[in-house]
Amino acid sequence: MKNRQFLLAARPKGLPVRTDWDYVETDTPEPGEGEVLVQTHYISLDPAMRGWMNEGKSYIRPVNIGEVMRAGTAGQVVKSNDPKFKEGDYVTGNGGVQDYHIAKGKHLIKVDPNLVPLPTYLGVLGMPGMTAYFGIIEVGALKEGETVLVSGAAGAVGSVVGQIAKIKNCTVIGIAGGPDKCQYLIDELGFDAAIDYKNEHVRKTIRKHAPEGVDVYFDNVGGNILEAALSNLAMHARIPICGAISQYNNTTAIQGPRNYLSLLVHRARMEGFVVFDYQDRYMQAAQEMAAWMMAGKLKNKETIVEGIETFPDTMLRLFSGEKMGKLVLKA
Amino acid sequence: MKNRQFLLAARPKGLPVRTDWDYVETDTPEPGEGEVLVQTHYISLDPAMRGWMNEGKSYIRPVNIGEVMRAGTAGQVVKSNDPKFKEGDYVTGNGGVQDYHIAKGKHLIKVDPNLVPLPTYLGVLGMPGMTAYFGIIEVGALKEGETVLVSGAAGAVGSVVGQIAKIKNCTVIGIAGGPDKCQYLIDELGFDAAIDYKNEHVRKTIRKHAPEGVDVYFDNVGGNILEAALSNLAMHARIPICGAISQYNNTTAIQGPRNYLSLLVHRARMEGFVVFDYQDRYMQAAQEMAAWMMAGKLKNKETIVEGIETFPDTMLRLFSGEKMGKLVLKA
Repeated sequence: MKNRQFLLAARPKGLPVRTDWDYVETDTPEPGEGEVLVQTHYISLDPAMRGWMNEGKSYIRPVNIGEVMRAGTAGQVVKSNDPKFKEGDYVTGNGGVQDYHIAKGKHLIKVDPNLVPLPTYLGVLGMPGMTAYFGIIEVGALKEGETVLVSGAAGAVGSVVGQIAKIKNCTVIGIAGGPDKCQYLIDELGFDAAIDYKNEHVRKTIRKHAPEGVDVYFDNVGGNILEAALSNLAMHARIPICGAISQYNNTTAIQGPRNYLSLLVHRARMEGFVVFDYQDRYMQAAQEMAAWMMAGKLKNKETIVEGIETFPDTMLRLFSGEKMGKLVLKA
Repeated sequence: MKNRQFLLAARPKGLPVRTDWDYVETDTPEPGEGEVLVQTHYISLDPAMRGWMNEGKSYIRPVNIGEVMRAGTAGQVVKSNDPKFKEGDYVTGNGGVQDYHIAKGKHLIKVDPNLVPLPTYLGVLGMPGMTAYFGIIEVGALKEGETVLVSGAAGAVGSVVGQIAKIKNCTVIGIAGGPDKCQYLIDELGFDAAIDYKNEHVRKTIRKHAPEGVDVYFDNVGGNILEAALSNLAMHARIPICGAISQYNNTTAIQGPRNYLSLLVHRARMEGFVVFDYQDRYMQAAQEMAAWMMAGKLKNKETIVEGIETFPDTMLRLFSGEKMGKLVLKA
C-alpha cells in the first residue's frame, strides 16, 4: 500500500502555487502501541489551510517545511492497536493531505455514514458546522428575530450560519459571489435576501435589505465587505470574526477596516474566535445540528473533487469561489 | 451683561483653524418659564468636540453652522425660574463656548465646590471620569490583577482609567507623549510603566512591559498605537474603543487596524461605547470616584487656560498634547 502525500515545500507569497508542495509516495506506516492506521477517503479543504502555510504566531503552529500538509479527514480504520477501534470503523480526524495516517485513538471520532454521508462529517457536522454554530450562537449572541448578515454565505461555514439564523427566526441576508450562489441561498436555503458582491454595490444593497441596520454580521471575508457591513450596523451589533479570506493571499499588508469607529457610534463589538475552544461541546452541538438535518431544517452541500493528485489546484477553488458549500477532496 | 460666544462658522478640513468659528458678542438672554440663566466659569475642552464639527451620522447630531459651539460647562446660577435652583448655585451642564446660557433645570447638575474644585467636575467627576469608569469597568470587564494598557494616559480619560485599574490591583502601563508626562504617570499616578510614544518603539516596549500580553487595552487614540496594542494581546483580551484622537484631523481616510485578525488569534474583542448610555448610573459612579479621591487613591489634574477668547488656540492643545490631565478653559 503506497501512501501518496503532499508535503509543504515552500511558504507561499500570495496565492499558493503547485511548487509550494512536494508530491511524494512513501510506504504506509505501521501503527505502534495504542495507535490506529486510518485510510483517508475524504480530505477537507478549508480557507484556514492558507494561514497554516505562513510562518509566525497564530492560533495554531504553522505547518513545517517538509511536513505533510495539515487537513481534516474522514476515512476508515485499516489496522488498530487501540481496543476502542476495529478495522472498517469510519472515523474523522486530522490526517493531512495523504492516503494513510497513524493516529492515537483519542484524536479520532467515530462516525456513522448511514446517518449522513461521510463527507458531511467534514462539513455541516464537522469543523465548518461547529464553527458556524458556536460563532453565531455564542460569539454572535444571536437573539430570535434579529437581522443577520453573513459573508461567504454559500460556503461551508456561511451557509450553516444563515440556516441556523433562519431556524432562530431571524431575517437573514447572505453575501456571495455570482447569481448561481445567490439563487441557491434564496431557493434552497431559505435566506431572505442575497447580495452578489461581484455584481452589486454591497454597502447600498445591505442598506436596502436591512434599513434598520444589521444586528449580527458574521464575517468570513474581511476587506471591503467588512467595511460595507460596518457601515450598516444596528445599535449594539455583534461581529464575530471567523476569517478574512479576501486577505489571505495579500502580498501587501491586510486592509484594516477604515470605518471601525462605527463600533463606537453603534456601541458594537467585533470579536474573534477559534472553534477549537468549544471542543468539549462539539457532541452536544452536533446532536442538535443532526436533529435539524433530520427535520429538513438544515441542508448540507458539498462540492467533491476526485483525486488526491489534484490537491494544489482544487485548494485554489476556495479562493476563486468555484465551488458550492463545503469543498472536499476525494482521495 | 454681554455674552461672548464662539459660533461654528465652517466645517474644518483637518486641524481646525481660527476661521472655523465666528466670535460674537450678544446680549445675555432672559430665562423663560421654568428656565435658569447660568454664568459659565469653566468650559470643558474635549477631543470629542472635533467630531461634533463634522457633518454626518454619529452618536450625537453635529453642531450646526451658526450655532454656539457645543461644550460641557461649570458655572453659577444667575437667575432662576425653576424652584429647584437659586441664584449662586454651582452647576454643571452643556452651556457651550459662551459666557451665559439658558438651561432647563433637568439639564443641570448641582455641584459643591467645597468638596472638590469646580473644574474637577468637568474632569475626574465629570464626563471624562464617567467615560473612564464605565469604559474600563463595564466595557473592559476589568478583573483584579490583570494587565492594563491605556493610551492618552496623561489625558483626562486615560489618567483616570489607569488609576482605577491600579485601585483594582492591576498592572498598569500608560502610553503618553514626552518624558514629562511619562514621569507624571509613574511618580504621581503610580502607574507601573510608561511608554513615551514620541521617543520609544511602542510595540516593542509594550512587549517588554507586558511579556504575557495585555488583558485590557483602553484605546483613546487609534492609528499606529492601536496596531501596536493589537500585536500584544493576551488571550481573551478586551479593547474598549473610546476614541481615536490620532485620526480626528485626517484629511484622508482613517487608518483601520491592519492587524485586526489578532482578535481572532487571541479570541479578543474590540467594543465601542459612548458614556451617555450610562447616564442613569453617573451618580453612583461619581460617589465611588469621590470616595477614592477623598482616600487619596484617585488624583485629579487640570490644565486651566484663562480667557474664553483663546478658545480656538486652546482647543488645539488637545491635538498637540500641550496640556496635562483635563484641559479646561476659564471664561
